[in-house]
Amino acid sequence: MYNMDRLFGEVAERGHVCVGLDTAVDYIPERERRRAVSDAQAALIFNRAIIDATADTAACFKVQIACYEEMGLAGLETYAETLRYIRGKGRLVIADIKRGDIADTALRYAKAHFDGDFEADFVTLSPYMGMDSIEPWLSWADSKGKGAFVLMRTSNRGMRDFEYLELNGKETGDRTRRVYDAVGEKLSALAAAKKGKSGYGAFGAVVGCTGRGEDAAVRKRYGSLFFLIPGYGAQGGGAGDAAALLKDGNGGIVNASRSILKAWTGTLSPDGASNAKDADNAFAAEAARRAAVNMRDDIRAALAGLKG
Amino acid sequence: MYNMDRLFGEVAERGHVCVGLDTAVDYIPERERRRAVSDAQAALIFNRAIIDATADTAACFKVQIACYEEMGLAGLETYAETLRYIRGKGRLVIADIKRGDIADTALRYAKAHFDGDFEADFVTLSPYMGMDSIEPWLSWADSKGKGAFVLMRTSNRGMRDFEYLELNGKETGDRTRRVYDAVGEKLSALAAAKKGKSGYGAFGAVVGCTGRGEDAAVRKRYGSLFFLIPGYGAQGGGAGDAAALLKDGNGGIVNASRSILKAWTGTLSPDGASNAKDADNAFAAEAARRAAVNMRDDIRAALAGLKG
Repeated sequence: MYNMDRLFGEVAERGHVCVGLDTAVDYIPERERRRAVSDAQAALIFNRAIIDATADTAACFKVQIACYEEMGLAGLETYAETLRYIRGKGRLVIADIKRGDIADTALRYAKAHFDGDFEADFVTLSPYMGMDSIEPWLSWADSKGKGAFVLMRTSNRGMRDFEYLELNGKETGDRTRRVYDAVGEKLSALAAAKKGKSGYGAFGAVVGCTGRGEDAAVRKRYGSLFFLIPGYGAQGGGAGDAAALLKDGNGGIVNASRSILKAWTGTLSPDGASNAKDADNAFAAEAARRAAVNMRDDIRAALAGLKG
Repeated sequence: MYNMDRLFGEVAERGHVCVGLDTAVDYIPERERRRAVSDAQAALIFNRAIIDATADTAACFKVQIACYEEMGLAGLETYAETLRYIRGKGRLVIADIKRGDIADTALRYAKAHFDGDFEADFVTLSPYMGMDSIEPWLSWADSKGKGAFVLMRTSNRGMRDFEYLELNGKETGDRTRRVYDAVGEKLSALAAAKKGKSGYGAFGAVVGCTGRGEDAAVRKRYGSLFFLIPGYGAQGGGAGDAAALLKDGNGGIVNASRSILKAWTGTLSPDGASNAKDADNAFAAEAARRAAVNMRDDIRAALAGLKG
């Protein structure tokens, strides 16, 4: 069974929220940082609290490795422990590593992130160098069910620089074909070759919610690709934007990081005063849980609105 | 002073060879692996021997992080120690990490690889998400002279999938503009904004030697970009192909990994028998030194041929 099928099941059961553990040190309550022997340890203890609090609500978790690499070797130990903790709870985790290198090197990366210290259920990949930087990862779909989300059309300002460039030659339906279409077409071919019970391929795509009105067309055109959807919340996308990228109420997960991890900084105590200064991990975790529940419900409501 | 200017000086003094420390475990002589307490330790001891033997000949070193990630946390310690060893000798090292992520995340990656445990002099970057995944790294050019090589036109089979796609609209001189041209144009603008004494920008490009006859035109079109040139040796490129990408005898480094690190496996003992089975690191290092010297001289000869 592909992990993508398991993820499809988690979305059906729990909703579309992917909790992004982009744990920057300043996301952690100050008193918890002081209590820990290192920032790397503080990040691990914080992550465990967030994971415990959001596990019922989250379809899956995504761990941004840059936040841990920044802390050096100790940070990467926390990264490894965070993955292990999530998987130990029987839950799915995406290693947000955006790797993209060829042949032998891709095989080495795949072994690094699908086995051993850094084992994850999914990775994110970057397609620039071509499909020989993607295909070597696929053998792990058969052996261990592993999956990947390949960058296709992201949600950042810079997406216009290369992803949006118009290609020469054939048109795609009613509009010009762009670089991201070329990526989507190759990924659709992969999905057809490794299609799971859910109807989605073992490898999906990163497609951001841009709110630009073209998202429903992208969803329709690449129907076999399960989407990892960034851009929600702190990055500007709303529930309606995300819903436009979801097919029949499934087919994608919506990532949010800051708006969940930092929810505690905007949380008021019962007497109306902001008690962020006195916050601890339990306080942060409860705020994160509520933020994740609200996000899940907002997306469900938006989907119901699309149907209605 | 930008590291790119220092690299220009190293090329002028030592030639164009970049020794790629893509140290796979089976590149290490068997008796050395047995002697070490772990493969990660064996890789570190092997790397030191290769670095010592080739330092006079190499313009710089490149360390492929995938080979170390594959060994987990212990492998990343070897990665960190290898960078430290090269920099401790006063020599330049490129972290071949091909990172590409946006804004905050790019800043975190930059801190991870330009400071702390994993500090390198240069990194490799992937441009797919756009220039907001490249620009955050630039602040380190001013503060510590750091540099980068951004994937532009690589030398693998899959380069045709996306890098070579023809763009709609304006033509570039006598030929169609491709995705890699869009990358090259953006990088040239960066190079103009951060130009060093050598005439090259602080950030350069990865341009593979393909032997396809178009390399001289690429060299001419992107004159302000210092090139990191893969594809030599085991990947099929020859000295003439590499020379076509070098301007006035400088302006690029040519990476070789397997053909240097594994030179010992094809080396004969004085009595004519292959003694790869009895090889140790000293034997491998001497073979690597000779391979690097031959490569340096081959490229110099090819450059002299171009001038003649």
